[in-house]
Amino acid sequence: MIQGNRNRIAAFCLGFVMWIGIQTIDGKEIQENRKPNIIILFADDLGYGDLGCYGSNLIETPHIDQMAMAGMQFTDFYVSAASCTPSRASLMTGVYAARIGLEKVVDDLSTKGLSSEVLTIANYLKQDGYKTALFGKWHLGHHPEFMPRQHGFDEFFGIPYSMDMWPFHPKPSHNYPAIPLYHNDEVIEYNPDVNTLTQRLTAKTLDYIKANKDEAFFVYLPYPLPHVPLGASKQFKGKSKAGLYGDAVMEIDWSVGQIVQALKKLKIEENTLILFSSDNGPWLSYGDHAGSAGELREGKGTTFEGGQRVPFIVSMPGTIPPGSTCTKLVSSLDVLPTILDITNQSLLKTIDGKSIYPLFLNPQAETVNQAFYFMNGRRVEAVRLGQWKLHVPHRYRVVNKVGGNGQPGNQDNFGGSIGLTLYNLEIDAAESKNVAHQHPKVVEELTQLILDFEYDIIKNSRPAGIIKIERW
Amino acid sequence: MIQGNRNRIAAFCLGFVMWIGIQTIDGKEIQENRKPNIIILFADDLGYGDLGCYGSNLIETPHIDQMAMAGMQFTDFYVSAASCTPSRASLMTGVYAARIGLEKVVDDLSTKGLSSEVLTIANYLKQDGYKTALFGKWHLGHHPEFMPRQHGFDEFFGIPYSMDMWPFHPKPSHNYPAIPLYHNDEVIEYNPDVNTLTQRLTAKTLDYIKANKDEAFFVYLPYPLPHVPLGASKQFKGKSKAGLYGDAVMEIDWSVGQIVQALKKLKIEENTLILFSSDNGPWLSYGDHAGSAGELREGKGTTFEGGQRVPFIVSMPGTIPPGSTCTKLVSSLDVLPTILDITNQSLLKTIDGKSIYPLFLNPQAETVNQAFYFMNGRRVEAVRLGQWKLHVPHRYRVVNKVGGNGQPGNQDNFGGSIGLTLYNLEIDAAESKNVAHQHPKVVEELTQLILDFEYDIIKNSRPAGIIKIERW
Repeated sequence: MIQGNRNRIAAFCLGFVMWIGIQTIDGKEIQENRKPNIIILFADDLGYGDLGCYGSNLIETPHIDQMAMAGMQFTDFYVSAASCTPSRASLMTGVYAARIGLEKVVDDLSTKGLSSEVLTIANYLKQDGYKTALFGKWHLGHHPEFMPRQHGFDEFFGIPYSMDMWPFHPKPSHNYPAIPLYHNDEVIEYNPDVNTLTQRLTAKTLDYIKANKDEAFFVYLPYPLPHVPLGASKQFKGKSKAGLYGDAVMEIDWSVGQIVQALKKLKIEENTLILFSSDNGPWLSYGDHAGSAGELREGKGTTFEGGQRVPFIVSMPGTIPPGSTCTKLVSSLDVLPTILDITNQSLLKTIDGKSIYPLFLNPQAETVNQAFYFMNGRRVEAVRLGQWKLHVPHRYRVVNKVGGNGQPGNQDNFGGSIGLTLYNLEIDAAESKNVAHQHPKVVEELTQLILDFEYDIIKNSRPAGIIKIERW
Repeated sequence: MIQGNRNRIAAFCLGFVMWIGIQTIDGKEIQENRKPNIIILFADDLGYGDLGCYGSNLIETPHIDQMAMAGMQFTDFYVSAASCTPSRASLMTGVYAARIGLEKVVDDLSTKGLSSEVLTIANYLKQDGYKTALFGKWHLGHHPEFMPRQHGFDEFFGIPYSMDMWPFHPKPSHNYPAIPLYHNDEVIEYNPDVNTLTQRLTAKTLDYIKANKDEAFFVYLPYPLPHVPLGASKQFKGKSKAGLYGDAVMEIDWSVGQIVQALKKLKIEENTLILFSSDNGPWLSYGDHAGSAGELREGKGTTFEGGQRVPFIVSMPGTIPPGSTCTKLVSSLDVLPTILDITNQSLLKTIDGKSIYPLFLNPQAETVNQAFYFMNGRRVEAVRLGQWKLHVPHRYRVVNKVGGNGQPGNQDNFGGSIGLTLYNLEIDAAESKNVAHQHPKVVEELTQLILDFEYDIIKNSRPAGIIKIERW
């Protein structure tokens, strides 16, 4: 595990000085000495190949592309897991989800959620004086003690878990109750219209930004789309060449554009860091209602690249060099420590991530060659170090039959199998050619990394929060 | 999975004819046409190297050695798991414990146990008209619905789980309640004196055999020893050269002698199949209160040979050739189907084991080259096929500090690690020399076997029985 700011203080100080300097040179005194605003835009099941700037030919995303042109695009960004709950748990906390008992997806029947012992980005920023808000999908436990306002968010408008965990699921695992739409601690609506969600969440976000333009704020906007059930408002339905899926992505793209525009209008764009990403790769069994991982192998629910490598774009005009690309290995574990770095805070707990703020300033900055582990539940199925990715033998999800028009196909979570396999991602991002036999030393070293990491996880993890049910 | 009697009917018929024939030639008409009695003697934590006939220099076991001389000794017999509950679950049912949700050790706090959907040896034999009794340690769930009399045993005298799960545990994980000694469904005593257990269980067994000498009977005698807490009666204390551990083993040896002698006296020895084995290898962290795996690597709690390869001796004078040795790969999964084979019954459920009755008749008999899987919980850590044993990368238990005089030392269940490793057990039973690089095809084939078996376990398993707690 990496201890927060150690060895990066120098890089951080340099960055901080640069940032202050830039503000001063530009003469925007109003932004000076104020902590930067943070906005995390987090799409749901959006694939690596679903954005124009990541090579999509089907879906036009001019506003996100523009955000990338104004900022930095990462080619090798990973989420810590290939499904909602563990991925979001890591984004919020900077640790692998298994460390906090959230390695599986929670739903309306779950008794577990984010432990009160864990610190989220919102906890850190709130205690630093930030206004904090979450507009969208939480998915880290739906019981009162696990909800966003218990984890550092002043305001919450959104849903507790995925939109498809509702009575209209085409193939429900059980009878889902009506999905509640919350404002703060109150349910204000049941089964909200999925076609209006992006609009409503965007409006909430814009209002919030306007209302808090003179203060430091943190907005976390986890769009419930383009996860099934898909939806889009009238002005976006039929707009893309990729069906309803593309329409939903285009509406998110519009939303991003609205937010960037609002920041400009309010003259706070240079004091606002925006991060855009997705919680995991495309849910391939949904066929035309799923996205694309581009050239990457497999999708959501797998530890292949298509499951965990996703778009990551950051923008902060005047600080992050425009139109830049970073090819370093980074991950969602790094988001929390990076935000702390930028806001000049110290980590209060040991985490897995590292600050990548130095990369925001210079995409070629020297970084520690840290391994990234691909976990499925509590199992470590693969590791990446530098250009190498090693899979230890494991089974994986395959799609036996593709669904269509919102109907799921048939996926088998254990239908595929892979032996001890080494890929050189630098020349084989598609994970197609096993080079284990050519590099026995690398295989040995990476196998040991996995075994050591398994031990670390066993020794350094805590249970999830669990509801206390009193019966009598 | 292997379907019971298929392809072995011929071998079985031959055996059956031989057996009938022998009875007639010997003129023991009283034994004719009667189903053979079955006695399973099952020691607890007894290592591969703890018996004279398996090479122990420290512990004299003349009666067990004599049983081996009168019958057949197996060099390559495995239990399905390296701990009590899963090992016993497989012995009783013929399936890997993970298939029936019993892959972990249960204790007084557990809500799980042997499902009523599963058929045990006792179920089969009872419905075939056998008298059935269990004298000793059960350890497949302590709630009423999981206890032996709900699983085919007419009579039960013994304890529900391990003797060390009691108030006198030297380092308890929690406050154990008094351990109950049951006779049938009634608790007749709490915290029975461990020094008297082997005597009491032996006496019960001898009485039972005498009382049922004219009927077909099945006795399952799972000794609670030489598992900690150790004990021995006065006449055995100090008798061995291996301390209290050796004394406990010698008392079990005495018990075996008593049972064999009783069968002879009652003239039913030729109509009685006795099987002797152990539930797993030695619990090494207990130091002088643990046994020895001989030359085998590691012990209880690991998927190395020392954890799962144990003594296995079978005797049935007149049927099993005396003084014979079988070196074939066999396992505790095979016990149930073998007993059904001998008693001319058909399997009613698909299981993992195969009948090895043909080997009882001829230790060189042709057998299917079936793979054996080494599981730890729900993970498959290794596989054996023929002389090859492949470990996929996993962590394993190591002893950091050896205990003494009944005090446990310090064991770390995940302290050791092993990469993808191939052993040739024919020349390296100690698992000391990795030959993976010399045999890449074998590694590939065995890796795939493990992956395929993992899939089979996922697809073909059912949950354990679980108590229904009604609260109001």
